[in-house]
Amino acid sequence: MKVLILGMDGYIGWSLALHQLERGNTVCGIDDFSRRKNVEEIGSWSAIPVLPMKKRMEILKKEYGDKISFYEGDLVNTEFTNDIIKNFQPDGIVHLAEQPSAPYSMIDQDHSIYTQKNNVIGTLNVVYAIKSHAPKAHLVKLGTMGEYGTPDLDIPEGFFDIEFRGRKATIPFPRFAGSWYHWSKVHDSNNIMFACKLWGLKSTDIMQGVVYGTRINEITDESRHTRFDFDEIFGTAINRFCAQAVINHPLTVYGKGGQTRGFLALEDSIQCISLLLDRPAEMGEYRVVNQFDEEYKVSELAARVKRIGNKKGLDVNIENIENPRLEKEEHHYKADHEKLKSLGFKPTRHIDEQIDVMLEDLYTYKDRIIEKKEAIVQSLQWQGKHVVQPYIHQT
Amino acid sequence: MKVLILGMDGYIGWSLALHQLERGNTVCGIDDFSRRKNVEEIGSWSAIPVLPMKKRMEILKKEYGDKISFYEGDLVNTEFTNDIIKNFQPDGIVHLAEQPSAPYSMIDQDHSIYTQKNNVIGTLNVVYAIKSHAPKAHLVKLGTMGEYGTPDLDIPEGFFDIEFRGRKATIPFPRFAGSWYHWSKVHDSNNIMFACKLWGLKSTDIMQGVVYGTRINEITDESRHTRFDFDEIFGTAINRFCAQAVINHPLTVYGKGGQTRGFLALEDSIQCISLLLDRPAEMGEYRVVNQFDEEYKVSELAARVKRIGNKKGLDVNIENIENPRLEKEEHHYKADHEKLKSLGFKPTRHIDEQIDVMLEDLYTYKDRIIEKKEAIVQSLQWQGKHVVQPYIHQT
Repeated sequence: MKVLILGMDGYIGWSLALHQLERGNTVCGIDDFSRRKNVEEIGSWSAIPVLPMKKRMEILKKEYGDKISFYEGDLVNTEFTNDIIKNFQPDGIVHLAEQPSAPYSMIDQDHSIYTQKNNVIGTLNVVYAIKSHAPKAHLVKLGTMGEYGTPDLDIPEGFFDIEFRGRKATIPFPRFAGSWYHWSKVHDSNNIMFACKLWGLKSTDIMQGVVYGTRINEITDESRHTRFDFDEIFGTAINRFCAQAVINHPLTVYGKGGQTRGFLALEDSIQCISLLLDRPAEMGEYRVVNQFDEEYKVSELAARVKRIGNKKGLDVNIENIENPRLEKEEHHYKADHEKLKSLGFKPTRHIDEQIDVMLEDLYTYKDRIIEKKEAIVQSLQWQGKHVVQPYIHQT
Repeated sequence: MKVLILGMDGYIGWSLALHQLERGNTVCGIDDFSRRKNVEEIGSWSAIPVLPMKKRMEILKKEYGDKISFYEGDLVNTEFTNDIIKNFQPDGIVHLAEQPSAPYSMIDQDHSIYTQKNNVIGTLNVVYAIKSHAPKAHLVKLGTMGEYGTPDLDIPEGFFDIEFRGRKATIPFPRFAGSWYHWSKVHDSNNIMFACKLWGLKSTDIMQGVVYGTRINEITDESRHTRFDFDEIFGTAINRFCAQAVINHPLTVYGKGGQTRGFLALEDSIQCISLLLDRPAEMGEYRVVNQFDEEYKVSELAARVKRIGNKKGLDVNIENIENPRLEKEEHHYKADHEKLKSLGFKPTRHIDEQIDVMLEDLYTYKDRIIEKKEAIVQSLQWQGKHVVQPYIHQT
């Protein structure tokens, strides 16, 4: 199978490339390196050092030869996107090439515009290029569980049945996104759904939970490491807590920490995406899957990291800080996630074991985290209040 | 009241400016003249000649002095959009500055990208500029009934109540748009809904039906005429049929013509928008209104134009041509439109009378329509089949 990975330099993109190559597939990657640049812009870097793409490619070429290729470019560039898809003729396209940070999209007008333009126009170019040059390719698009927000309803997988004034219909489940980033993903979902209907394309839209972890089986040495963000803008809950734990920074829980979300280990995220590539949607089908393993409250995750950290001799404290986000801190949360299981997904990682591995891996690089510790708590308030949050030094 | 009209050079924008000025309000307009350029690009022009903006402004300045101003610019330009809203400090902003043609958005990749970028990024700039510089301004945004598509359900005004697995919620009515243009308006609706929640802005999102007519009360002489598009790309159903009727071109009904839509006379569209400006949403409120007068089937409209045309001595024929669009030709259609009535909207125009006036007005300019008659039936097929549709010369 020929797999095109859009955003191959990222956390999931790089891991997926390793896994797909190891399975014997042919992989082409693209990236515009915006993740590296944007993380640098906000004063941070990857806790775990990753090689520049040129080095990464040299190493992969030695092992996999012509089965791996890479092109630098931006999906917003129509000609570039068309050329890549026309020339590579992929069977499957995994689209991970979006600006992935909600807080980043909330910094100011320019960052919100950048995020929506990058994501919506990039994705529109992708679906047009597929239609024009590889109409049978299966588009696996990374969306997010955050598209649904936290409605006071159970969350189905994409669609649900309703009755209104005596008439019945199956309709898309409503989206209540909470940032310009999350809305850009909703716009993408709508555009892709339409492309499938209009042109008979096939696509799987992944509503993914929060991914955590430093490892997959194919990360066998340092040269294969994938990036790991711990700052407030690009880091996500468990990962950020683990990075905080290894430098004795209090775990920063937003508000009461009652926010419930679905979570998934990196290894299992890669497993799910690979499964979806192997079991594609039908021509004309727009398939939505909710991709996560277990649901946890944020406060419960912090407690887990504290417990496991303490066992390892780390002095871990939890601090409830003012919530910069526009979100409910206590809410109903019950989301279906049966489709991937019915395709054969079996979770392989336990969260406690993964937290243990992460703490080990991150401890090795704790000086890098300390060097950028100002990036751990930033002043960004989503509703524009811009309260300066002092950095609390843990003694 | 200070009213900012985004897209003042357009069909509705110009009419609204005249009406608001006549009511004594202060009007500032902006436009990038893309409508004129885009209509020229596809080989057509306004059936009714309109003056260049410079001339239009000279005439208005004589009558209304400092109460009218105009700036050329593009909402996609962040600095321009911020400056306009900061400097004018509007009470109400009527956003008509979008690429308004579904067929235009379906021409090819570039036109689809242009449409979504222009509309989504332009609108995002507008909401950000309001938040930063005029947070109490009421944003009246022109959406379209086409955002809803034709679900097999009654259509409420924006939101409806559902029950799912024993839990109840009020949710946005699902959108089933049928073109990249229509989806761009859905993306806008989502972004505006979020801005109201995030920053407490106030907005009315108008789901408008198809507007028809050549006249409003304030169009008292030729120098005040508003544009009138009759080509297949920018012309809409009744307007296009009337232009066809005056040149003995068969009325081009797509497929069976069973498509039902809501329609509204230009005079009444202006009345509704003005009413919404006078009765704004509350701070933080995202208000959705369905704005149309009556529902008609397209085949029925063609029959009306034929009947009225025949009475006036025109030889009018109807031709059912292959439907270039992705739409149902027979479907359930029942849309609420009570909110505007409860605010005081009373339709003032009858469709038959308006068709009569349009045929009179357009007959005066029939040579202009004949000159661009190739633009009446184009070859564009929305699903990409690009069947060349021969121009059928009516004898």
